[in-house]
Amino acid sequence: MPSWSNGKRYNARPDPMIIIVTGGTFDKEYNELAGKLFFKKTHLHEMLELGRCGLNVRVKTLMMIDSLHMTSRDRKRILDECIKSAEKQIVITHGTDTMVETAQVLGRKIKGKTVVLTGAMVPYKFGSSDGMFNLGSALSFAQSLPSGVYIAMNGKCFRWNTVKKNKSKGEFEES
Amino acid sequence: MPSWSNGKRYNARPDPMIIIVTGGTFDKEYNELAGKLFFKKTHLHEMLELGRCGLNVRVKTLMMIDSLHMTSRDRKRILDECIKSAEKQIVITHGTDTMVETAQVLGRKIKGKTVVLTGAMVPYKFGSSDGMFNLGSALSFAQSLPSGVYIAMNGKCFRWNTVKKNKSKGEFEES
Amino acid sequence: MPSWSNGKRYNARPDPMIIIVTGGTFDKEYNELAGKLFFKKTHLHEMLELGRCGLNVRVKTLMMIDSLHMTSRDRKRILDECIKSAEKQIVITHGTDTMVETAQVLGRKIKGKTVVLTGAMVPYKFGSSDGMFNLGSALSFAQSLPSGVYIAMNGKCFRWNTVKKNKSKGEFEES
Amino acid sequence: MPSWSNGKRYNARPDPMIIIVTGGTFDKEYNELAGKLFFKKTHLHEMLELGRCGLNVRVKTLMMIDSLHMTSRDRKRILDECIKSAEKQIVITHGTDTMVETAQVLGRKIKGKTVVLTGAMVPYKFGSSDGMFNLGSALSFAQSLPSGVYIAMNGKCFRWNTVKKNKSKGEFEES
Repeated sequence: MPSWSNGKRYNARPDPMIIIVTGGTFDKEYNELAGKLFFKKTHLHEMLELGRCGLNVRVKTLMMIDSLHMTSRDRKRILDECIKSAEKQIVITHGTDTMVETAQVLGRKIKGKTVVLTGAMVPYKFGSSDGMFNLGSALSFAQSLPSGVYIAMNGKCFRWNTVKKNKSKGEFEES
Repeated sequence: MPSWSNGKRYNARPDPMIIIVTGGTFDKEYNELAGKLFFKKTHLHEMLELGRCGLNVRVKTLMMIDSLHMTSRDRKRILDECIKSAEKQIVITHGTDTMVETAQVLGRKIKGKTVVLTGAMVPYKFGSSDGMFNLGSALSFAQSLPSGVYIAMNGKCFRWNTVKKNKSKGEFEES
Repeated sequence: MPSWSNGKRYNARPDPMIIIVTGGTFDKEYNELAGKLFFKKTHLHEMLELGRCGLNVRVKTLMMIDSLHMTSRDRKRILDECIKSAEKQIVITHGTDTMVETAQVLGRKIKGKTVVLTGAMVPYKFGSSDGMFNLGSALSFAQSLPSGVYIAMNGKCFRWNTVKKNKSKGEFEES
Repeated sequence: MPSWSNGKRYNARPDPMIIIVTGGTFDKEYNELAGKLFFKKTHLHEMLELGRCGLNVRVKTLMMIDSLHMTSRDRKRILDECIKSAEKQIVITHGTDTMVETAQVLGRKIKGKTVVLTGAMVPYKFGSSDGMFNLGSALSFAQSLPSGVYIAMNGKCFRWNTVKKNKSKGEFEES
């Protein structure tokens, strides 16, 4: 919770945050020679700059995978990264297809940290993307929600154990 | 606070929200005939659609002013709108130049509602804008922060009485 | 040739032009539910408006195909459309993969018209696209080149029988 | 004229081209600290890259001025630059407000070169710009029109002595 809840000024000890990048539509690009979508480097730094983000946040690229291709081993790596990170406020960029699965793996194990997963339905690089909106949303929820694991999509936040993706609408809902 | 804090499911009674539009750089456009910046209609609807925002939110355009030209009468109108609105979660889009002044007018008077002011350093219509990021941020803080008046800029939130705009950096800071 | 070459003022009898749309990367979009590229309606009208194009030009969508999937029957349809059109200045938007093949089918048969094929390496809808540049280029070449069939890509124009696509570079060259 | 008109292959001796940058809306940017439009460096290189332009073209920034502020001395500098350049195909990016004036200064004096002036109604950096379209158009006209001075705007080309800007429409027309 923001530190004024106990009388302290917010910026006295700014909480460090981490964004763990795992890929997903968020970071996909168009390969014009092959005519396909693919991953290069993350665009998170460019996006934080565009948002004029002044938070004390570091970005770590853990993997760049379409979440349809994630294995339990990949999700375990994400879990381990969350557990070992010094930061107590974590945002994870992730493909939307299996974001709920990863949220469940994390939700059962992580204590004492606020973890918010987010993604995008349209690649950031394509223009009409929800990426910037979701990034601002996730970073804000990560600062203000109590410890726990959440998904931030469509402007809302959902607890890890009461959310599902409505694949026909391309939206997240309470389950 | 999200309603699960007391055992209720989040979506059982989704809190309606309102975005009060007052103008600012957020909504400026380029008038190619005159070669100047000016206001037409708000882009908020387009932005909420771009963000695939699923919140129960209505948009009300109260005025379209550069905040450098705001008078105390304008700020009183914003205050009155906040007080009379049924919604308890309010986002206000506002020019950054005198956002702090308006926040102070609101902060002294508003009770029982979470009000978050936000804006943009670059017009949404210009491409490399922080508008979408700030909108996602503000809507999220409005759902999760306790009652009070806040400014959401640069990914952070500030209480209305401990914030100032650093004009040389173009950023908001704790005062 | 522009009509001043024989003393007439250019705009006295503005030559009508036609843009025949056949698809290609030019008009592809991102389907966020399926995570794939696909065709909806052409964006040509929007692009002509964006370019503030004042030409007397009509747009006809003949087909929306990835040129890798074009058959000789499709190319015959394009040829027939060129032959029957009243306009003597024709631009054809086309996938770059088999643009040369179609140019050859047209080049052998069309007389008395200036036909310019163009396309894009990145979909117009994706932001960092060459679409607008190529459209302006093709429309200009169509007005100023003598009768014949050409490809306009990379800012250059090539005759239909002396051009090839360099697939590793994603550029067109003299053959 | 393209060199095939006399039997030579186009690319055997690719004609070098020059783009002379003088500023105008084409290159304006938004200064977020001051909330005003201003000039930094030209975006021409970025635009040529975006268009995947393969021409043998160099870019020279002569000045960065709003054409409303141009003096006869500025126009004389542009004229001198055209005369002394080795290239016989010249594109000049220029503000649209007094583009006709500059075209007249050049038209009376320049022989043996194809000079095409172009600009934009909306800054390239603002997104919904005609800049890329006009650049593709001008570069193409510069390669295919006979010697002379022209304006390329709205997809059309006009001779220097039969054109005017319709200020209420923001378009160029035959005079």
